[in-house]
Amino acid sequence: MKTFLIYGGDMRQIMLAKLLKADGHNVIICGFDMQNVLSNSGFENTSNVDLAIKASDYIILPLPSTISDDIVNTKFNATELSFSAILGSLGKAQEIYAGMVTPTMYNLCKAKDVYIYDYFTREELQVANAIPTAEGALAVAIKETPTTINGSKSIVLGYGRIGKILSKMLYSLGGDVTVCARKPEDFSWIKANGYTPLHIDDLNKEICNYSLIFNTVPAKILNHKMLKQVSRKSLVVDLASKPGGVDFEAAAQLGINVHWALSLPGKVAPETSALIIKDTISNMIKETEVKKR
Amino acid sequence: MKTFLIYGGDMRQIMLAKLLKADGHNVIICGFDMQNVLSNSGFENTSNVDLAIKASDYIILPLPSTISDDIVNTKFNATELSFSAILGSLGKAQEIYAGMVTPTMYNLCKAKDVYIYDYFTREELQVANAIPTAEGALAVAIKETPTTINGSKSIVLGYGRIGKILSKMLYSLGGDVTVCARKPEDFSWIKANGYTPLHIDDLNKEICNYSLIFNTVPAKILNHKMLKQVSRKSLVVDLASKPGGVDFEAAAQLGINVHWALSLPGKVAPETSALIIKDTISNMIKETEVKKR
Amino acid sequence: MKTFLIYGGDMRQIMLAKLLKADGHNVIICGFDMQNVLSNSGFENTSNVDLAIKASDYIILPLPSTISDDIVNTKFNATELSFSAILGSLGKAQEIYAGMVTPTMYNLCKAKDVYIYDYFTREELQVANAIPTAEGALAVAIKETPTTINGSKSIVLGYGRIGKILSKMLYSLGGDVTVCARKPEDFSWIKANGYTPLHIDDLNKEICNYSLIFNTVPAKILNHKMLKQVSRKSLVVDLASKPGGVDFEAAAQLGINVHWALSLPGKVAPETSALIIKDTISNMIKETEVKKR
Amino acid sequence: MKTFLIYGGDMRQIMLAKLLKADGHNVIICGFDMQNVLSNSGFENTSNVDLAIKASDYIILPLPSTISDDIVNTKFNATELSFSAILGSLGKAQEIYAGMVTPTMYNLCKAKDVYIYDYFTREELQVANAIPTAEGALAVAIKETPTTINGSKSIVLGYGRIGKILSKMLYSLGGDVTVCARKPEDFSWIKANGYTPLHIDDLNKEICNYSLIFNTVPAKILNHKMLKQVSRKSLVVDLASKPGGVDFEAAAQLGINVHWALSLPGKVAPETSALIIKDTISNMIKETEVKKR
Repeated sequence: MKTFLIYGGDMRQIMLAKLLKADGHNVIICGFDMQNVLSNSGFENTSNVDLAIKASDYIILPLPSTISDDIVNTKFNATELSFSAILGSLGKAQEIYAGMVTPTMYNLCKAKDVYIYDYFTREELQVANAIPTAEGALAVAIKETPTTINGSKSIVLGYGRIGKILSKMLYSLGGDVTVCARKPEDFSWIKANGYTPLHIDDLNKEICNYSLIFNTVPAKILNHKMLKQVSRKSLVVDLASKPGGVDFEAAAQLGINVHWALSLPGKVAPETSALIIKDTISNMIKETEVKKR
Repeated sequence: MKTFLIYGGDMRQIMLAKLLKADGHNVIICGFDMQNVLSNSGFENTSNVDLAIKASDYIILPLPSTISDDIVNTKFNATELSFSAILGSLGKAQEIYAGMVTPTMYNLCKAKDVYIYDYFTREELQVANAIPTAEGALAVAIKETPTTINGSKSIVLGYGRIGKILSKMLYSLGGDVTVCARKPEDFSWIKANGYTPLHIDDLNKEICNYSLIFNTVPAKILNHKMLKQVSRKSLVVDLASKPGGVDFEAAAQLGINVHWALSLPGKVAPETSALIIKDTISNMIKETEVKKR
Repeated sequence: MKTFLIYGGDMRQIMLAKLLKADGHNVIICGFDMQNVLSNSGFENTSNVDLAIKASDYIILPLPSTISDDIVNTKFNATELSFSAILGSLGKAQEIYAGMVTPTMYNLCKAKDVYIYDYFTREELQVANAIPTAEGALAVAIKETPTTINGSKSIVLGYGRIGKILSKMLYSLGGDVTVCARKPEDFSWIKANGYTPLHIDDLNKEICNYSLIFNTVPAKILNHKMLKQVSRKSLVVDLASKPGGVDFEAAAQLGINVHWALSLPGKVAPETSALIIKDTISNMIKETEVKKR
Repeated sequence: MKTFLIYGGDMRQIMLAKLLKADGHNVIICGFDMQNVLSNSGFENTSNVDLAIKASDYIILPLPSTISDDIVNTKFNATELSFSAILGSLGKAQEIYAGMVTPTMYNLCKAKDVYIYDYFTREELQVANAIPTAEGALAVAIKETPTTINGSKSIVLGYGRIGKILSKMLYSLGGDVTVCARKPEDFSWIKANGYTPLHIDDLNKEICNYSLIFNTVPAKILNHKMLKQVSRKSLVVDLASKPGGVDFEAAAQLGINVHWALSLPGKVAPETSALIIKDTISNMIKETEVKKR
């Protein structure tokens, strides 16, 4: 049994708190001082933050952890919650786990000789998060098109984590799936899974054939020149993180239906998402312990 | 090339009109006299209905065809459109194709010696419609639960058309799928597909284990006694046609999240839905011609 | 606990005996008098058949039950085992379960007022047996062709039990699957599952395109005229029961590689096959008891 | 159009020759001087090897390329074919493509300033080869066990290329699939695909539960201690390359049925296998040309 301090965030972090408690840990919460937020949660918001920090083995920050240099991302706190406030009260045996740690945060921690770990950079979290992202993309495609995924012609740009999981889902619903990639080994995988491979160099002349276009590549692939080839009847779903992979202005001008789907895991599956964070932090703690021995 | 008269309906029937025209047929439309409804559709609403009926080989009514005894189901007509009006102008060589023909309609047609066929009773339409229904159910489950379908424990009540297609989709998204049925041969199919079979007699004691419950059986299976066993954290999606398979009052009283998903094909996939109707009517016309020869 | 008499058969019936015993039943065996056949099985061959019949609640015959009118299908008995011998010793409370009961057998039983049931006619057995049949067909295709199933163009003739399960397997291994059928509702199912439908009337002009041809239809579809269109590089696997669906002489003459795969369940999966028989007989016994009450 | 010299090998290399010719290339063959080997192939064995080497743009060696230091792997040549013989006749503009190039071969080429490339090290070939390997493993499992894959409990050791493709196939045939791995991100992928993850540290106490055990890890995981836990009714299929992942002696002593499946691609799918080599060499030639520019 360890003591975890949930330091800011939204309902996903409350779910995380519940999951940690269910595992037999001691869990303290701060950054949720708005009325009724914690009612029925079995938790109370801690007023004595300093004491809470001192009592904790692990301080857990949300994903993303901060909204600007020193201000923690917290949705249900009347006042601002500062990141640097943690450091004053923290000893060397304690550790911070946060999602998307900025260079400033790293530097602050280093200066104070405090351990901080970024769970968002972990591969197992990124893979696991690709599932709610892909499911969210399916729901968009089901709702936003007048046709079924079954029998559709869809193309997935990119064969990374999201590309792999999304193309599998589209295919298993009975869609005709093309995956656009560049590397020969990706083509081997794409064919192995029964999809049609397309080289990125051929995208411009082929993109007109797809009614469902999913982008997963964090680069402006769907620029004005490319969008001009897209059918007006197609739906474009952009799953790439900011700044996205679509020239949104050009799309609007051309009258193309683009859906920018950001942060789907927290939106379509907050509980699964909390579980993924918990599992990832557990793995990190275990690995850190092994190294320390 | 034949002449089709689209007689009432909503945007799905306009899509049907376009599909028939694309196949090379002559298509006339009536029952869409509201302004702008047909703009950009390439069609005009016929004012001379009597002439239109006389000129047509086939009169196509929507699904459902009527909203009460003699009034055709039409969403974009300022005045009512009567079913019996067709019969006065119709000759023996012409045929009516309608979705959900009532006994009254059949009798009227019989009295006038007019052929009417119900495309909704056709097995190929029912099977094809199960796809948009199942996709719509997936979208509901993705949006209405805090977890992903991947890794979920779901149960599908009934192994008819929708049960078969929905369980396949849930399984292929990585869910743990149980199907509740009664017949030994259904159990063989369920096991063949990798799902877990459950006999309906064991549902009451097992239903507590599922976070996603989909009903496809048109009978009040989810009555008060059954709902009492359902977890408050579960989502129930009822896909059975009216009057549905859930005691909605009991569910509301017990605080169970029930989603009654009616007429999903027309809602989530009107174009696919129009295509299904077109294909079905084509099959029926072909079969009728063979019989006449 | 009931007493079962296993009356003839091969190793599959010995597996059936073990499964029944594991369920807590009393099991007697006869028709296995060859040396060493039953060593390590935990069973002994009964010499007093008459007594064994009298002591049993259920007499179980193999699949197929007889090899000619009155001779039971038994592989490991030095002498012949007669079917009619059972009837003399059997009382009214006892029942015979056999696979493929001939009219002669039925008449004999009727004359003696003895209950006999054919488990081979049961739908749940036929469905379950389609799995080892389809797996066996996969193994043939993997071994007998110089290419992988992944990426192959295959066609399945017929969309009954075996057609459904086999096309699903081929598709899930990444093959491009066409299913040849006749009924509109079959086409709806075929498209729902992501396969390509082909009408039987178009088979003759399309069959040249497939390197893997699986027949499941018990009719001479692959006659000389059809086989002339088949590529010499193709493999034909005939899964239809006797007399099969291929004109074998014509195929030999044309130099087409035909593999006639008979009785695959007993060959590739005797244990699963025994389990299927056990489950089916259990279902039948339960239903009979319900009717008797 | 380029000139390729196929230098040794077995029937797979003849298929490769045909594929290159079908692509419009000029193809010469040597190392096939046994009678009738090339009959009906459309090729003749070149007697003047020196001239053939000089005339070729690319010299293609088989997989594996040599059987010992300087002797090329050739099955249908009456005499030995030497590797170093190539080097004397080869100019700087020509290139050798070979499978499994040994350090000795590399050194020989370097000394003569000749380009040699190993197509076997290419990721796209390794991935593509995993398909016939996995299909071959399925065929073994179907034939060598008395049960079906559908409904079986199987475990795949390792989640590399073969592990990924094989577990997908087993799952899609309706098996209950566990994958044994070590890395947290592998567990995320395993769960994403619907399989059960097992940590390698827990293998010893869990391995008794699986009737099908597939090893893909090139390390002696299935040692005496591990094999002692394996059920005598299980089938072990070792897919790891030499020296394999099973202590075969211990397995024999314990009476465990082990199937060592080596070089499956060439055995179960020589044509697909030739196509994979051709595609890989094409990719390599293209990349080399780009670099040279």
